[in-house]
Amino acid sequence: MTKIRVTKFYDFEMAHALWNYDGLCKNIHGHSYKLYVTVIGEPIDDENNLKNGMVIDFSDLKSIVKDQIVDKFDHSFVVYKNAPHKKLLELNEMYARHHVVDFQPTCENLVVHFVNIIRSLLPEGVKLKNVKLYETASSSAEWDADDN
Amino acid sequence: MTKIRVTKFYDFEMAHALWNYDGLCKNIHGHSYKLYVTVIGEPIDDENNLKNGMVIDFSDLKSIVKDQIVDKFDHSFVVYKNAPHKKLLELNEMYARHHVVDFQPTCENLVVHFVNIIRSLLPEGVKLKNVKLYETASSSAEWDADDN
Amino acid sequence: MTKIRVTKFYDFEMAHALWNYDGLCKNIHGHSYKLYVTVIGEPIDDENNLKNGMVIDFSDLKSIVKDQIVDKFDHSFVVYKNAPHKKLLELNEMYARHHVVDFQPTCENLVVHFVNIIRSLLPEGVKLKNVKLYETASSSAEWDADDN
Amino acid sequence: MTKIRVTKFYDFEMAHALWNYDGLCKNIHGHSYKLYVTVIGEPIDDENNLKNGMVIDFSDLKSIVKDQIVDKFDHSFVVYKNAPHKKLLELNEMYARHHVVDFQPTCENLVVHFVNIIRSLLPEGVKLKNVKLYETASSSAEWDADDN
Amino acid sequence: MTKIRVTKFYDFEMAHALWNYDGLCKNIHGHSYKLYVTVIGEPIDDENNLKNGMVIDFSDLKSIVKDQIVDKFDHSFVVYKNAPHKKLLELNEMYARHHVVDFQPTCENLVVHFVNIIRSLLPEGVKLKNVKLYETASSSAEWDADDN
Amino acid sequence: MTKIRVTKFYDFEMAHALWNYDGLCKNIHGHSYKLYVTVIGEPIDDENNLKNGMVIDFSDLKSIVKDQIVDKFDHSFVVYKNAPHKKLLELNEMYARHHVVDFQPTCENLVVHFVNIIRSLLPEGVKLKNVKLYETASSSAEWDADDN
Repeated sequence: MTKIRVTKFYDFEMAHALWNYDGLCKNIHGHSYKLYVTVIGEPIDDENNLKNGMVIDFSDLKSIVKDQIVDKFDHSFVVYKNAPHKKLLELNEMYARHHVVDFQPTCENLVVHFVNIIRSLLPEGVKLKNVKLYETASSSAEWDADDN
Repeated sequence: MTKIRVTKFYDFEMAHALWNYDGLCKNIHGHSYKLYVTVIGEPIDDENNLKNGMVIDFSDLKSIVKDQIVDKFDHSFVVYKNAPHKKLLELNEMYARHHVVDFQPTCENLVVHFVNIIRSLLPEGVKLKNVKLYETASSSAEWDADDN
Repeated sequence: MTKIRVTKFYDFEMAHALWNYDGLCKNIHGHSYKLYVTVIGEPIDDENNLKNGMVIDFSDLKSIVKDQIVDKFDHSFVVYKNAPHKKLLELNEMYARHHVVDFQPTCENLVVHFVNIIRSLLPEGVKLKNVKLYETASSSAEWDADDN
Repeated sequence: MTKIRVTKFYDFEMAHALWNYDGLCKNIHGHSYKLYVTVIGEPIDDENNLKNGMVIDFSDLKSIVKDQIVDKFDHSFVVYKNAPHKKLLELNEMYARHHVVDFQPTCENLVVHFVNIIRSLLPEGVKLKNVKLYETASSSAEWDADDN
Repeated sequence: MTKIRVTKFYDFEMAHALWNYDGLCKNIHGHSYKLYVTVIGEPIDDENNLKNGMVIDFSDLKSIVKDQIVDKFDHSFVVYKNAPHKKLLELNEMYARHHVVDFQPTCENLVVHFVNIIRSLLPEGVKLKNVKLYETASSSAEWDADDN
Repeated sequence: MTKIRVTKFYDFEMAHALWNYDGLCKNIHGHSYKLYVTVIGEPIDDENNLKNGMVIDFSDLKSIVKDQIVDKFDHSFVVYKNAPHKKLLELNEMYARHHVVDFQPTCENLVVHFVNIIRSLLPEGVKLKNVKLYETASSSAEWDADDN
């Protein structure tokens, strides 16, 4: 059988800051993140299966990532646990959606975090192949199964 | 010598329907399909060759795929042989350009179909590396030589 | 006060056919339609208003057009009433989502149709300024309030 | 003489929060803002002028907006003066680049703010025609000279 | 009747140089020019007309501009008559496609040149509304009927 | 540790001509080249390192390629040493920025040239993975470490 990769695109609007960094990104700022998730598998070859001809239904792949990543990180602020994040709690409603994470929230580390989330959610027979995250229109980080 | 990948982009406007499917795609609807075809080879290193420095002339790769895929599937309707396609014949001129195919016309299966067409048309020394088909701006399927 | 235009983008996947036409579009085919809706008004200047600083909440403009246009025309087939559309009824489930319209479904006429739908749905103080519909990446039709 | 519009594109990465708002945007979050600035004038028709054939040198229009808007708002956090912004001061280095503004930082109000900045900086004979700001890929606000 | 704008997109690959200019553009260099041509008119409302529902057939608008502009300027070099262009003649086959024009080939002047060409070619009832030319992804010049 | 790919995007405006070629590209013409450079490595996992969480600082990758490729090839003319390039010298200021290269300047050969430049400039622990160059919006050439 033929192996085929299937990719879905997502975006979300998030703020972050890099703690103890020496560039502009040390300040609270934000991005329109663009996320591409690619899985690989064999298209179902069974004309009685409602998903005949699909590796995974695009709408299933859409909801897995939407529920566990996009809806959680969209319109939120992500900050490293080592940063003075407790002071942020006083901001009340401006700080209602935030993530204190145990890694510096660079584009690279966010990709690894997303890979770990997605991998546990895929149905049998479908493997994660690639996750690519654009922080800006010209900068991206990417995890690929063949590298790891 | 160095191996280089060469990619051309194509698009075409096509309708389809997924027979015996449980989502919106069971209805006749359409997409502006985007197709990327990537081949791999060594650039010609011969200054007397008119194609010096090329793996394949972009315009040759363009016409191979345009003649055999784009010009045939553009402005057409693709339907699975198991669907009630004979009733469509009564639509006369609205059904002048159609393809009854022996596979469910998902994005995945269309990619495999295109791979088989293109592979037989490439000149010696040029190998098919990747075919990627976007059904919508956020959904794509992709065949890669390294997976198969 | 300053007048500001606010634009939202939508897309939907639709098939159509142009009846009694002399080009490729006479066949059933489809497009990934891209729709831009622009309204104009004065941003609310009242710090007690939850919508302070907005002409219209982006999410309100999003749902008006999503409910009345995108969700209805997405994954559907649009056909002119003068075409032999009754024969399509025999396609059963492939024809579950369709629109028999009293106009040739060109990009121009679809725009006019959408303008009439949207205009009746806008809240007071917000006027429709522009509706632009892309049939393909290189072809669009556009209604503008200043032309009419 | 012919009047011609000249447009430059800019982008910047900014966080904001909408104070006293009832949607997701009340939280600190961010966007990759895309900004289009359009000016209008007559191209210089003087072959001894180094800027012959230009309304304004693209690189001059680029630096005016880069210096006064992009370089200031990029990698910063913008917040309304009525929000509890003083508590943010304790964030120290994460809060080194911020703007406390006297308006709710909606896309609409940011456009008006940018219009006021740019208008004062244009050389004689060149008028501001349009400023369009994308907050996300699908949402934008726009000021146009003909509306005001 | 309703007035509708219809836009087609074109691109072409051209080199130019700005004579007697004080920036980088004085050197021979090139761009992937993107051209948008917008016309305005009333869609034909006559069900016996093959072009029913159209302001102008997209494919007619495509060929007018393709024949008279794209096919002539694509893969060519444009230079001002006051530049030392006669020395270029010695380049023989590298200089087979060139245009010596009586204006500095800035983006603004090219737009005016294209406006004059297109205006004379439109069928009755169809008026030129807007011509926009991108020299780079971030720089464009635009002629609009309402400004002139 | 996890290997992550990091990609930066660049563009530049360049003219070229293919000597002794049988297509349109034999003429002096130009393109808005788009360049994607991808490196691979392990994100630094050391909270005392200012670059914690990064494979390479995006701004470092940006400046390496900008200094050695973009700033040199932007607004220049590239020509094969076998072409009659000496005649070009008489063009004086129009020929101030040019590159006489010892290869036919096809998209494929330019990619190989850029690969050789970039490889020597990367810091330890960071390897070049992929270089992709778009000559036009629909044509690209690409070097990948896994192919060579």
